Amino acid sequence: MSLYLRHQALLEQARQACQSRRCWSPYPEMPGKYPQAEQAQAAGAQAFAKHLGTADVPRRFLLDQPGTLNWIGEEISPYTQEPLHIHYPQAEIDALFEAAGQAIDDWARADIETRLGVLMEVLDLIYREHLFEMTHAVMHTAGQSYNMAYAGSGVNALDRGIEALVYAEQAMRSVTPQAQWERSFGPSQIRLDKTYRLVPRGVAVCFSCASFPTWNAWPSMMASLATGNAVVVKPHPATVLPMALSVRAFRQVLDQTGFDPNLVTLALDTRSQPIGKQLVKHPRTALVDFTGSVQFGQWVEKNAYPALAFTETAGCNTVILESVDDLGAVLRSLATTLCMFSAQMCTSPQNIYVPRQGVRTPGGMVSLDEVGQKLARAVSDLCREPKKAAMILATVQSPHTLALLAQMHQEGQSRGRVLLAPQPYSHPQFPNARTSTPLILQVSTQDRDLYAGERFGPISFVIACDSAQQALAQASADVREFGGLTAFLYSGDENFIAQAEEAYARAGAQLTINLTGAMPLNFAAAYSDYHVTGLNPAGNASLTNLAFVSSRFCISQSRRPARAA
Amino acid sequence: MSLYLRHQALLEQARQACQSRRCWSPYPEMPGKYPQAEQAQAAGAQAFAKHLGTADVPRRFLLDQPGTLNWIGEEISPYTQEPLHIHYPQAEIDALFEAAGQAIDDWARADIETRLGVLMEVLDLIYREHLFEMTHAVMHTAGQSYNMAYAGSGVNALDRGIEALVYAEQAMRSVTPQAQWERSFGPSQIRLDKTYRLVPRGVAVCFSCASFPTWNAWPSMMASLATGNAVVVKPHPATVLPMALSVRAFRQVLDQTGFDPNLVTLALDTRSQPIGKQLVKHPRTALVDFTGSVQFGQWVEKNAYPALAFTETAGCNTVILESVDDLGAVLRSLATTLCMFSAQMCTSPQNIYVPRQGVRTPGGMVSLDEVGQKLARAVSDLCREPKKAAMILATVQSPHTLALLAQMHQEGQSRGRVLLAPQPYSHPQFPNARTSTPLILQVSTQDRDLYAGERFGPISFVIACDSAQQALAQASADVREFGGLTAFLYSGDENFIAQAEEAYARAGAQLTINLTGAMPLNFAAAYSDYHVTGLNPAGNASLTNLAFVSSRFCISQSRRPARAA
Repeated sequence: MSLYLRHQALLEQARQACQSRRCWSPYPEMPGKYPQAEQAQAAGAQAFAKHLGTADVPRRFLLDQPGTLNWIGEEISPYTQEPLHIHYPQAEIDALFEAAGQAIDDWARADIETRLGVLMEVLDLIYREHLFEMTHAVMHTAGQSYNMAYAGSGVNALDRGIEALVYAEQAMRSVTPQAQWERSFGPSQIRLDKTYRLVPRGVAVCFSCASFPTWNAWPSMMASLATGNAVVVKPHPATVLPMALSVRAFRQVLDQTGFDPNLVTLALDTRSQPIGKQLVKHPRTALVDFTGSVQFGQWVEKNAYPALAFTETAGCNTVILESVDDLGAVLRSLATTLCMFSAQMCTSPQNIYVPRQGVRTPGGMVSLDEVGQKLARAVSDLCREPKKAAMILATVQSPHTLALLAQMHQEGQSRGRVLLAPQPYSHPQFPNARTSTPLILQVSTQDRDLYAGERFGPISFVIACDSAQQALAQASADVREFGGLTAFLYSGDENFIAQAEEAYARAGAQLTINLTGAMPLNFAAAYSDYHVTGLNPAGNASLTNLAFVSSRFCISQSRRPARAA
Repeated sequence: MSLYLRHQALLEQARQACQSRRCWSPYPEMPGKYPQAEQAQAAGAQAFAKHLGTADVPRRFLLDQPGTLNWIGEEISPYTQEPLHIHYPQAEIDALFEAAGQAIDDWARADIETRLGVLMEVLDLIYREHLFEMTHAVMHTAGQSYNMAYAGSGVNALDRGIEALVYAEQAMRSVTPQAQWERSFGPSQIRLDKTYRLVPRGVAVCFSCASFPTWNAWPSMMASLATGNAVVVKPHPATVLPMALSVRAFRQVLDQTGFDPNLVTLALDTRSQPIGKQLVKHPRTALVDFTGSVQFGQWVEKNAYPALAFTETAGCNTVILESVDDLGAVLRSLATTLCMFSAQMCTSPQNIYVPRQGVRTPGGMVSLDEVGQKLARAVSDLCREPKKAAMILATVQSPHTLALLAQMHQEGQSRGRVLLAPQPYSHPQFPNARTSTPLILQVSTQDRDLYAGERFGPISFVIACDSAQQALAQASADVREFGGLTAFLYSGDENFIAQAEEAYARAGAQLTINLTGAMPLNFAAAYSDYHVTGLNPAGNASLTNLAFVSSRFCISQSRRPARAA
């Protein structure tokens, strides 16, 4: 049975999900629901442990890709603050591009079904054999909690990969492979046979980020590969293992199915000698997918030409509190989302705009100060119990984030009011974990320089506004200017809601209204929630729309007189 | 009846044509087949004549758009070499953007059907009321023949406009407007109503070129407007009237249907004070469509950011002669295509690669020299009879082209062999027309600097190659490096044909094989022939694929707890 046939039924369900945008996933949401969960989890932990080296004997992660110059690796677990001692091949960049260029022709000639079958098999291989290994790899590089690493960086990222395949297929199927064409020119009748080929652009470079490596990279890789391109993966040097495992899985399936594994390779660098710009400006680079900082993302957008750039960076995600039914429930939801993975998600809220006169509730107005204090209390309640804190906050991926927290704390003390001061919490399993509870500052719209733009990490601002109207105007202007992926509104006033929907739609932040309860406010569901609009500086690539896939291939045609019937 | 309903059946036929890529058009191919052709043609000639002023009294082309600073116009008819004396409003650029920005909201809020209906009505208005006026306007600016102006710049361009609407609709329909989403989070069931809005990017700038103004501009305008954007049209100062008529037609229908006509405005400049860069870099510019020179096109691609750029420029279109069944028929077809509108089409062939040992025919090898001489004779045969020459060659749009012809003639004399020297021919109806018969040079691959890149106008090169293989290698390399839209191959060797199909597919030139007879070799049929691949420097935008439309809008969503059932 061909791989396409094996995965066809699932792909068809995914197509329907993308069309209806209803909830669907072929995967269990929680680790405990994985088939034979206990054994699988134990095997995954073991597989991860086997990758680790020691200070004396670093362990090589073998990848049979060309051009290996050196073995490097500088990952440090945010849970132990110890090096992983894993060394990966550092490749000569030209050798990777050369090999990728040679691999493309056969891959591009394969039909759509073949490529889709192979790529579905890769996702299936990761799911069946590497999911818990990946979970541990993400934990000890990105610093996510076990459950988030399983869900957000595991099954939900696999879903995003399938979703990208659905749209790639849709775009490719919109081109008929051949046509008969007949027309008269004067007295003559001309009959032509026409053939339309899908031609890949070439070699794609896929950057993955330190805190959420797979969620953007897998769909980007799928989009490029499904449309016939090769991919050079450039992981953040702090978070290599999840992408090295991914690259190995792609290469394994490509090899087993008779394709050149050099369609997918790993390009590694170090913090001190980055190769990002060199990869973007390489003459063979045709596509660039970038997830990471605003600064480098904008450099990519400006400089990728003639390559096409697809970016997802960051921004200031905004919350507006106008009026609420149940202030406690709202603040608990907000607190959870502010704490979730220590707000190291591109969808984490940061700026909370509150009218100076307070927030309307069924029991009357609650003052701005009281709202701020209650929010701070809700957050500190979540952080009090280490086991709960560990599940929600997890760790802080980078020491730079601790430095930023300290700096913003200081700024807040001198310029605003510190509603909640950050402090390490003690992780129950990993006593040496890099952790911090959130910092919350109360400021006014005068302090825009503090809160405009992403302050990466568990840092948020309660911002005093003159009115709900001004809050909306300011928040949506901040999104337009500094970027924003998500936005959150609490209001019982349908007119105000309609205004906010319009303002945020134009500003390009995905809006969640009056949500409380068990779902994390910033949860983005594959097949249903579009991630990034492209309308503001937070990125230009949306997971997943046709624009994400349709320019990754071109259409070349040939035509000739029809053979006599 | 809504405009959408009025045009629905035709749109459905167009959708089917785009899917099957079979021959279809709702329009008569020749002027004589237009309903009540004689009256319509007379009325069109009159309407055109009414636009013309005199040296003493220039005539204003009234457009009720904002920000008019001045009245300017410097069009000169290539048929009379006299100024048209038409003055158009020169607008304050910021005023156009400001007005466009204000017009967008209502237009973007309208549903897809409404926008498609309005835009189909614009095309219909041009067809019903302005087609022959447009024909004369194109003749006396671009310099095309009457028949080409009717077909290539009239009905075929309308077809390209409809085609763009089909793909814009397809891209927009792939986004469901709303969804119900339901999932459990732990013990809780979360039900959300989700709304997905299509949000236009903003203001598009559409550049149209001097020699073929409508063919690219109409589909670009349709793609931008269908997806909710506004368009500022920037015609080449030599060819304004066709676009001024277009802008007026858009504005008229928008106004009649209750939309703000400032969705479509005209931004005019002069050769001495161009505003192109200013328009591209305007802070409100979100999209740029450019047709014109390679040089400015590449500037646009490099500098449009943060706007998205869609370009169609030029390149060296290549011909390979390997072997033929009927050399006479092949050379007649080539000659016709080299003469067609004096090769001022982006699809005109320029470089003819011939093996040094000659071309295989059923009667034996025909030497390179003989092929060159026969081609030159076939071209001069076409030019001998002024009436026939006028129909095929038409006029030379720009005096710069005559200067280039003279320069290339001189270069050819000193470096290669002049197979055919250019000379004016006497136009039977317009004795003062700017005309030239083609220049054909015989050179070798050593003279790559002469033929690499587009030499705009009736200039072609017979290039001696070591072999057919080398011809293919050289031709496809030239396309990759300098761009190319079309390619033409004559060969009876199926292996060679297969190699050429592969090589040109990757180089990104649309290939026509072994075509002879009544159809111009470079004829590109709307709904069937993809125009530009995006794989080489001749442009990045293909008429019409999903990539041409799908990034012109973004998707913003909002979600909120479902109302209790």
